[in-house]
Amino acid sequence: MEKLYEGKAKILYPEGENTLRVYFKDEATAFNAQKRGLIPGKGVVNNKVSAVLFRYLEGHGVKTHFLEEVSEREMRVRRVAILPLEVILRFRAAGSFARRYGLPEGTPLEAPLLEFSLKDDALGDPLICENAILALGLAAEGELAQVKATTLRVGELLRAFFAPRGLDLVDFKLEFGKRNGEILLADEISPDTMRLWDRKTGEPMDKDRFRKDLGGVEEAYQEVLKRVLEAPEVKEG
Amino acid sequence: MEKLYEGKAKILYPEGENTLRVYFKDEATAFNAQKRGLIPGKGVVNNKVSAVLFRYLEGHGVKTHFLEEVSEREMRVRRVAILPLEVILRFRAAGSFARRYGLPEGTPLEAPLLEFSLKDDALGDPLICENAILALGLAAEGELAQVKATTLRVGELLRAFFAPRGLDLVDFKLEFGKRNGEILLADEISPDTMRLWDRKTGEPMDKDRFRKDLGGVEEAYQEVLKRVLEAPEVKEG
Ligand SMILES: Nc1ncnc2c1ncn2[C@@H]1O[C@H](COP(=O)(O)OP(=O)(O)O)[C@@H](O)[C@H]1O
Ligand SMILES: Nc1ncnc2c1ncn2[C@@H]1O[C@H](COP(=O)(O)OP(=O)(O)O)[C@@H](O)[C@H]1O
Ligand SMILES: [Mg+2]
Ligand SMILES: [Mg+2]
Repeated sequence: MEKLYEGKAKILYPEGENTLRVYFKDEATAFNAQKRGLIPGKGVVNNKVSAVLFRYLEGHGVKTHFLEEVSEREMRVRRVAILPLEVILRFRAAGSFARRYGLPEGTPLEAPLLEFSLKDDALGDPLICENAILALGLAAEGELAQVKATTLRVGELLRAFFAPRGLDLVDFKLEFGKRNGEILLADEISPDTMRLWDRKTGEPMDKDRFRKDLGGVEEAYQEVLKRVLEAPEVKEG
Repeated sequence: MEKLYEGKAKILYPEGENTLRVYFKDEATAFNAQKRGLIPGKGVVNNKVSAVLFRYLEGHGVKTHFLEEVSEREMRVRRVAILPLEVILRFRAAGSFARRYGLPEGTPLEAPLLEFSLKDDALGDPLICENAILALGLAAEGELAQVKATTLRVGELLRAFFAPRGLDLVDFKLEFGKRNGEILLADEISPDTMRLWDRKTGEPMDKDRFRKDLGGVEEAYQEVLKRVLEAPEVKEG
């Protein structure tokens, strides 16, 4: 079937006008695709983890693009017009934020800190502040307010989801899209797009193992999937 | 006399507890001091232009560190604790902002756009958004509000000052400091810290001539000084 778009981690296939099939690849990239590699099984983990989390969030009133899983590596979603923003929520300073401001990796933040970057690979996804988002017309004021409120709510829900699974949610990245004037949470929520640290050992259980060549990358992804599937909250749903 | 601090463009000499003498050098740096050079006469121009502008702003109710000129290259100022922020106001996209977001140099902005960077040479003065300024404790909420309001007011006043002098103020950078709980406008306001384009020819009349090796750097600084000193607004004062 013809691709609509192939990105760094996923392939989109059109299914009629209003829905897409998202295929999750094992390919991994980091540092704006300067580093490339393969994490066997990653696509399966990210599809499954994203599906569980989208369902969990929907169950708590968050509107998402998710419709259903269609295979191990594929989900069906509502087609949206993606806002060209990466919306990041941080509970600790880590990664680019820690480097940018010279903070030790893992410094706790008193309150969750919201950050945006312009989703533009050619420009290196630069940091962008709210007034610039509005000035450049990347989102309307009401849309931005909704994106911010939803991201904070998703942050609370994800922290509560991962804590009893022995995982400390350090930060995560979301993408949002528009469909019939409505803002929906889109893209994926996976170890590619979250920092998750084991609460006992402090070990990263996410794409940082790949970024930093820490080894045990596959195993970490599988362990996250296991904990996502096994713990109590999922059985409730 | 002993220096308190020597920076990239100025030297500070202590004068008692509460005041400083600022000496303006001819040395020029750009791109976080990767590029270095000399602009003969720059120190005189920047001292004089800053003095005129600080007096003009004071005359319009803006509280500044400026006390008096003491020589061609020196002014006396109130000593403040500088907030570690560069406060930038943009009327057009130019320089780092234009590059960061892939906008053509000179693109007009519908409304003046305020931007902050963390004043930290080792980190390359990174962009920082308001919520991060507050989270990292770089300024208190009330201070930030005052800095923003003052910068917008300074922007209006400077645009009005330069327009009849045939100069289009494209953007500028301010620094603020605290003294007895009060926020004062500090540092300098000069062709080193503003982009000024000739309104007829569109030619830059500021440090961009040095940054971009456009030639006629000295001449541009002298021309700005001449226009700053000659035009009507100054005679009023
Ligand atoms: N519901 C959706 N409708 C349309 N596009 C989407 C949807 N969800 C995610 N996308 C987009 O699909 C692409 C997913 O593939 P990915 O490999 O992550 O791409 P990229 O390399 O651009 O990040 C992204 O560009 C993402 O913004
Ligand atoms: N009124 C003041 N009191 C104390 N410090 C000041 C005052 N005005 C400016 N400064 C600081 O003095 C220094 C001026 O020298 P400069 O060459 O511009 O230094 P830098 O290379 O750090 O920018 C700057 O660090 C600036 O923040
Ligand atoms: Mg992506
Ligand atoms: Mg300086």
